[in-house]
Amino acid sequence: MENSFYKISKTVSSLSAYTPGEQPKGGGWTKLNTNEFPYPPSPKVREAILQELGDDCAALRLYPAPLSDRLRAEVANFYGVEPKNAIGGNGSDDVLNLVMRAFGDENLKVAAMNPSYSLYPVLSKMQGAELLELDFECGLKLPLEKIVSSGANVFILTNPNAPLGVAFSDSEVEYLADNFKGLFVIDEAYAPFSGKTFSKFAASRKNVLCVGTSSKGWGLAGMRVGWAVGDEDIIKTLDVVRDSYNIDRLACAAAVAALRDSNYYENARRRVVESREDIEKFFGEMGWNYVKSSSNFVFVRPNKKGLSPAQAAKSYFEFLKADKILVRFWPNDKKICDGLRITVGTPSDMQKLKESSIKWKNQE
Amino acid sequence: MENSFYKISKTVSSLSAYTPGEQPKGGGWTKLNTNEFPYPPSPKVREAILQELGDDCAALRLYPAPLSDRLRAEVANFYGVEPKNAIGGNGSDDVLNLVMRAFGDENLKVAAMNPSYSLYPVLSKMQGAELLELDFECGLKLPLEKIVSSGANVFILTNPNAPLGVAFSDSEVEYLADNFKGLFVIDEAYAPFSGKTFSKFAASRKNVLCVGTSSKGWGLAGMRVGWAVGDEDIIKTLDVVRDSYNIDRLACAAAVAALRDSNYYENARRRVVESREDIEKFFGEMGWNYVKSSSNFVFVRPNKKGLSPAQAAKSYFEFLKADKILVRFWPNDKKICDGLRITVGTPSDMQKLKESSIKWKNQE
Repeated sequence: MENSFYKISKTVSSLSAYTPGEQPKGGGWTKLNTNEFPYPPSPKVREAILQELGDDCAALRLYPAPLSDRLRAEVANFYGVEPKNAIGGNGSDDVLNLVMRAFGDENLKVAAMNPSYSLYPVLSKMQGAELLELDFECGLKLPLEKIVSSGANVFILTNPNAPLGVAFSDSEVEYLADNFKGLFVIDEAYAPFSGKTFSKFAASRKNVLCVGTSSKGWGLAGMRVGWAVGDEDIIKTLDVVRDSYNIDRLACAAAVAALRDSNYYENARRRVVESREDIEKFFGEMGWNYVKSSSNFVFVRPNKKGLSPAQAAKSYFEFLKADKILVRFWPNDKKICDGLRITVGTPSDMQKLKESSIKWKNQE
Repeated sequence: MENSFYKISKTVSSLSAYTPGEQPKGGGWTKLNTNEFPYPPSPKVREAILQELGDDCAALRLYPAPLSDRLRAEVANFYGVEPKNAIGGNGSDDVLNLVMRAFGDENLKVAAMNPSYSLYPVLSKMQGAELLELDFECGLKLPLEKIVSSGANVFILTNPNAPLGVAFSDSEVEYLADNFKGLFVIDEAYAPFSGKTFSKFAASRKNVLCVGTSSKGWGLAGMRVGWAVGDEDIIKTLDVVRDSYNIDRLACAAAVAALRDSNYYENARRRVVESREDIEKFFGEMGWNYVKSSSNFVFVRPNKKGLSPAQAAKSYFEFLKADKILVRFWPNDKKICDGLRITVGTPSDMQKLKESSIKWKNQE
């Protein structure tokens, strides 16, 4: 796209955009491809939005509070930290972008596990920061010594990991916090389903930042609200690169109301975990290998006579899609091309998945 | 904020964040400091938001359309261009940030007029791109030859200018489009009040991009929706650096509904222009110098016996603030420290401003 008029910046000219999961148009799809929450957000969310709207939406003509103070206070309350330890973003992708801009550059490398969230390579490349992609050790253990000696300025741990769903232990996280000589970022997008957050721990350390989002565990992917919790100096640095009004009024109201209604979400998440355990049992009965999940998705490796693992994954993916069930598949990634990442939906979504899976398995 | 754990990226370590206009807490303020629209958004905005919410907000659990297709289509329709010529942002600040990231770097300079929008220096510095700040010629004319020979990869023209309110002529804009050897960005945040947009013109050129926002002319500052219109290749490049889901569902619905209701906005903007002409007349009667505005604010230089221009501006600013009228003042900027930028509010806001102004003028 270079032309005779203008040049494209050096980090962007060779960049490929992040590819989000498909958002199908038209109805009838069972959407198990982007790890959305299967239940509507809390009814309190609707009330809070209506209250912000008022009769004539007059509040919408005014800029939001630049610091999204209400959100910071609510995030702090939720995790048991101080508001000065919290920041909000236009989705956690915004927060991750701020982290890259503030702590990455040509001389400040970033490290992450491979596989993990495929946005990290895009953000680091855009910032001109080298991304060190580290392999798991046997049994999906973290290569602790390699992380510590990586020389990276930032290490991002997706915990639980996506797309594999595995969560890491307290001792692994504490070891890294104690020994990694850089900023240790824990991306907790899926932590609501593991029931374990390190946010309070992060706020007690100088070098740990936990990133969270309302998209996965609170049913607000459509509203784009994320956050981070950590040491005040880290938060201040992120605020320097943050857009002044990065969260709109209704998004802020929605996220605050959601964070407050813990009963509603605990109950809904319990149902997700029940459905996850049920579908894992089903995959086991099918004789398929899967990674025991601490998240709201399961990474499963289907098998079928006469097909290689990658062929089986592709065949299963296409069969499900023809049946209007959308899951996530990375055919071009050698490490994970033998499996599919399937979001845990409602019991009726899962019933549909089971039936389609059996049809595929039995198909000649 | 550097410490023994991590380093801050080279462009951010010396960066100061943009300072947004004060958002006062508590009631009773006449807020004329951030150029918000003085009237509520169209009633259609509320309807569109309620429709997106539905009975149970179930849609909010799903990610928005990654391309915000509905917004692009509506922006295109509004300006008479094709959807491929349009992109949306989380406010036009998001779009401006994308422009900087895509087209600025250590070797690709950015140029802008001084004074103009004070976010540009922050964004360019964050990107490591040198910002060339160009002076106006006598009578607030653009230094066309200096812009053309600046060597910048991007020239951003705020049209109408902020904080001065002056709009530039067709011939100046066309001359730059024809002769500037880089990307010519026209920031049209205030164009709804000049009644003149170059968006359709931009889409017909290879090197022109018009940036717009719903914040100023559509009463949606609280919802954070901006856009840009230009050549398809420019839009594609911005899409590479854009966050996948940068506009939330309710923000998109609100902006689409607002763009559609042109009758409502034409009428409301006419009232703003009437109030602007009235307050300009008042400033003239006070014997104060002001820049004839094509925007929704007026830059005025108050005077008072015994005070230097900068002292008068400071005294007037503080007097208004004590009277709970908030306007914008840049005491540390030599070029504009002798004036105040005052948003055009409702007739009753303006009446309050007039009364307070007269009190200040008559005060010993």
